[in-house]
Amino acid sequence: MKVHHLGVAVESLAHTVPVFETLLGQKAGPVETVAEQQVRVASFRVGESRLELLEGTSEDSPVARFISKRGQGIHHVALTVPDLADTLRTLERQGFRLIDRAPRVGAGGERIAFVHPASVAGVLMELIEEP
Amino acid sequence: MKVHHLGVAVESLAHTVPVFETLLGQKAGPVETVAEQQVRVASFRVGESRLELLEGTSEDSPVARFISKRGQGIHHVALTVPDLADTLRTLERQGFRLIDRAPRVGAGGERIAFVHPASVAGVLMELIEEP
Repeated sequence: MKVHHLGVAVESLAHTVPVFETLLGQKAGPVETVAEQQVRVASFRVGESRLELLEGTSEDSPVARFISKRGQGIHHVALTVPDLADTLRTLERQGFRLIDRAPRVGAGGERIAFVHPASVAGVLMELIEEP
Repeated sequence: MKVHHLGVAVESLAHTVPVFETLLGQKAGPVETVAEQQVRVASFRVGESRLELLEGTSEDSPVARFISKRGQGIHHVALTVPDLADTLRTLERQGFRLIDRAPRVGAGGERIAFVHPASVAGVLMELIEEP
């Protein structure tokens, strides 16, 4: 298990990428668009984890709605687990509220699922199956 | 550079520690009180990082004030840097707003400093000097 990435909701990649490039002392990777999640992503490597800046591609995208409610900031954290289907079954049995009750395929091709923040002290938690 | 820890603001360790123990499949370390920051901390190892649950010890503690404004959730992220004083000088020169303009000694004995979220897309960023 590791922190796979942290997702940060930002208003503008054009404005925020240079800020994080200075802070982290490295250039961001190329910006990728994930149409399904209505988001443009710029990513940095931090040890075994990544820091992902997320800009919504429309005003009703999840990231834009998050910002209009709470302002910019950390949007979610993604952890890896060895067996995602098994983890989801355990969590459901324990009463966790799941956004995805079964693994689905994420933008990078991995099997992913989200747990609802209401079950995790306000944290939107993404789980990613280790390759 | 790595993600040293994620700090999650919670209303009640008694309630939330078992939730994360189930989610992460491990027991929390012993709860520690950091009087200076008015906080009780329960901690989990996640790869090379830690996940820290933070409960304020008084109603006007920073963590309790964060929760009353924004609800429970991720409070800050801490990254390691090789030379903290040098990093702070660079950030100040680049116009970053620093909460700590020079390193101070954190609860664990490390040299730490916080960067203001207004400069980092709403993210409260702690920097910790690598040992």
